[in-house]
Amino acid sequence: MRLNRTYKLKDIASIIHARIIGSPDQVVTGLNEIHRVEAGDIVFVDHPKYYAKALSSDATTILIDKEVECPPGKALMVSDNPFRDYNILVSWFKPAVYSAKSVSDSAKVGLNTHIMPGVYLGNDVIIGDNCIIHPNVVIYNDCIIGDNVIIHAGSIIGADAFYYQRKPDKFNKMISCGRVIIKDDVEIGALCTIDRGVSADTIIGKGTKIDNHVQVGHDTVIGERCLFAAHVGISGMVIIEDDVTLWGQVGVPSNLLIGKGAIVLGQSGLTGSLEGRKTYFGSPAIEAREKMKELVLVKGIPALIERLKKLEKGV
Amino acid sequence: MRLNRTYKLKDIASIIHARIIGSPDQVVTGLNEIHRVEAGDIVFVDHPKYYAKALSSDATTILIDKEVECPPGKALMVSDNPFRDYNILVSWFKPAVYSAKSVSDSAKVGLNTHIMPGVYLGNDVIIGDNCIIHPNVVIYNDCIIGDNVIIHAGSIIGADAFYYQRKPDKFNKMISCGRVIIKDDVEIGALCTIDRGVSADTIIGKGTKIDNHVQVGHDTVIGERCLFAAHVGISGMVIIEDDVTLWGQVGVPSNLLIGKGAIVLGQSGLTGSLEGRKTYFGSPAIEAREKMKELVLVKGIPALIERLKKLEKGV
Amino acid sequence: MRLNRTYKLKDIASIIHARIIGSPDQVVTGLNEIHRVEAGDIVFVDHPKYYAKALSSDATTILIDKEVECPPGKALMVSDNPFRDYNILVSWFKPAVYSAKSVSDSAKVGLNTHIMPGVYLGNDVIIGDNCIIHPNVVIYNDCIIGDNVIIHAGSIIGADAFYYQRKPDKFNKMISCGRVIIKDDVEIGALCTIDRGVSADTIIGKGTKIDNHVQVGHDTVIGERCLFAAHVGISGMVIIEDDVTLWGQVGVPSNLLIGKGAIVLGQSGLTGSLEGRKTYFGSPAIEAREKMKELVLVKGIPALIERLKKLEKGV
Repeated sequence: MRLNRTYKLKDIASIIHARIIGSPDQVVTGLNEIHRVEAGDIVFVDHPKYYAKALSSDATTILIDKEVECPPGKALMVSDNPFRDYNILVSWFKPAVYSAKSVSDSAKVGLNTHIMPGVYLGNDVIIGDNCIIHPNVVIYNDCIIGDNVIIHAGSIIGADAFYYQRKPDKFNKMISCGRVIIKDDVEIGALCTIDRGVSADTIIGKGTKIDNHVQVGHDTVIGERCLFAAHVGISGMVIIEDDVTLWGQVGVPSNLLIGKGAIVLGQSGLTGSLEGRKTYFGSPAIEAREKMKELVLVKGIPALIERLKKLEKGV
Repeated sequence: MRLNRTYKLKDIASIIHARIIGSPDQVVTGLNEIHRVEAGDIVFVDHPKYYAKALSSDATTILIDKEVECPPGKALMVSDNPFRDYNILVSWFKPAVYSAKSVSDSAKVGLNTHIMPGVYLGNDVIIGDNCIIHPNVVIYNDCIIGDNVIIHAGSIIGADAFYYQRKPDKFNKMISCGRVIIKDDVEIGALCTIDRGVSADTIIGKGTKIDNHVQVGHDTVIGERCLFAAHVGISGMVIIEDDVTLWGQVGVPSNLLIGKGAIVLGQSGLTGSLEGRKTYFGSPAIEAREKMKELVLVKGIPALIERLKKLEKGV
Repeated sequence: MRLNRTYKLKDIASIIHARIIGSPDQVVTGLNEIHRVEAGDIVFVDHPKYYAKALSSDATTILIDKEVECPPGKALMVSDNPFRDYNILVSWFKPAVYSAKSVSDSAKVGLNTHIMPGVYLGNDVIIGDNCIIHPNVVIYNDCIIGDNVIIHAGSIIGADAFYYQRKPDKFNKMISCGRVIIKDDVEIGALCTIDRGVSADTIIGKGTKIDNHVQVGHDTVIGERCLFAAHVGISGMVIIEDDVTLWGQVGVPSNLLIGKGAIVLGQSGLTGSLEGRKTYFGSPAIEAREKMKELVLVKGIPALIERLKKLEKGV
């Protein structure tokens, strides 16, 4: 999340009563979680396992639960609970204010765009020209839709990330302050969900076509001209390059990359990133021709047993 | 379903013109299907295969299609069509009256709870404090939502059970009179369905977090602090204990139990109950490490064939 | 799609400025894509691979991108872009005009049918008697619902087909002009999608019962008394005969046939048509008992390895 203007670290630290190590005048321009940080960002870390990653990331301010040595050019904010304080900062800079009207006064709708009955457009939603937003679609705050986009009935754009901090007795919700950005010429089927980013953006690339009941998780970035069939489930923080085809009911766990032009056959489940321009099948998904060989091998086991029997009998 | 007061059996039997075997003054306090019966309940049975189960259950009145010996302390109602007559009783005591207003006059909403545009709240719905019910959520009659609950846009709470009596020429619908109860601190994603119980309650335990497109069937009871990822499908009459994690697209058939702390990896499909504190994978799901071994074994078949060839050649 | 009256070919050709080969007075009564054509129809073809199929189909007018010999009794319209011109004709005869009112003035609703709050009924929708259309259901233009039908909350009937012409730089959308027809006594769960036909009808047969989150693709024809559990995904142009049971999360690709009385177990994925009156399992789906044998064979591999070791040692 970009802040509305540039802040000095001392102004930010005072909000959460954190102690500063480094320059109190360090420039702060945004907040992000670790996968998306850039210079000017605050990132938080609350486990020694991830200290090094956070300290060496592009983030220039680290909200941390221990006094450690401050890398040159960076600054630390020390807090007894960085997760809680990160959420406080998110809520401070981006309070979750929901429009009580079906179409928020701050939503902007382009020329020749049809907003059908029952549609909800949250605050600061922007929709381009020549779009059709079919009945009962819900678009949460801050989402941005391009031109010539069709969203079929009942789809939900911009719901919160499924993202929690696990504690022994409960899950703490990470407050989502990211957006969904849908580029031009995208068509989204009925009853799809595209979750907002935790702190960055979930993006659907130009010309991508999505069938019904598809889930796209938070901060996932999808390329151009992809084709996703019904019931595809894509987790958060996935990168899918251009021209990728996912057939029905394919499942994609978080943090993977699918290369340009890959084709994943129906019901496959990924367990790792996939190279582009190949066809995959299975759960776990492997190259489709390898999977087909395996299916044949299994069917061949009875013949192997017969051969083994012959050898055992000394025939 | 609890009745609104205590009845005598003779009052109930007269509604459906059933003949009583046993005391006409037998106390009746509820109706339930066989998996959930307790003392005071009527249960129905219409197949000799299930007579013994119904007669020996905790139900104290049995609606049955044959004159059989009445167990001591119980009573029978004899009917030519117990299924039809059970439905008549359900409709008698719990007529399906739907609110024509988006928010029923009898719905109760707690303090600091946001009901967003397009939400439907049926008759006698109760929602606690500090909840957010996002746009276009539908909550059918009688459902009860705790405090600090978030339900994302488009989710449907309390639709009818998928439960029919199969006849050669049609399916007879079992009328659902149960409820959905969602405990405190639950978050439900967008476009989820939590079906009402047939005659008892579907329950989501405290602090459980559910991602988008998840289905929870009738009468299923889910523990505390569970985590279900997108597209998980849970059938009716399942018991899921506390701290269970189901990853994306997992499928759980009816009448199973998943023990405390179990983890089921993505796309797995259960075929039986699962012990707690273990990790499972596959369709059918087995312990994940066993499944991984099997995958390795299949990949090893070509090497076995080579060894077999050598033996056959007498090398 | 049937046209509103009978046309002469010369009237149609003038709309798209196509050159006629054959009789300009050829009778035209409809437009259809190749899987559903009948006499009087226009069909389009834009690839030499499919010329023969189109020319020998039941369609009596072929919209084609090359001058070829005209079969006797038929006529050709030659166009540099048959796909574009087919879409122009569809839009000409069936302009996509959406009702801005929640319930279109041209929608017809039968006796004793409940249309709940938040329901959208498009133009020319017809709903029979004794139905319940639960809150926030969306029924697009032209769909026809029979008597005694229940549609649970949030389901979407008649969204566009997921059907595009793939070009190197984009997908061209095929305009859907077909309908959805739901016969008597059908129950559809919450959050289901039944897509309209591209040019013909998607049909759900009498007495079929469908659980939540089910997808039925364009032009698919489903028989009577079928039972589909939650998250079943059925593609376009599938034929499912009577009394078929598909358990949860089953996937059915396009252009297949499932025979009468077939049962497909949970999470199975079809790769071909299935004979009736058998039970199937697996992804790819095979007869369930064969699949069970395969699972046993894989578990038996370690024993095979032991036997092989013994032989190798010469024991």
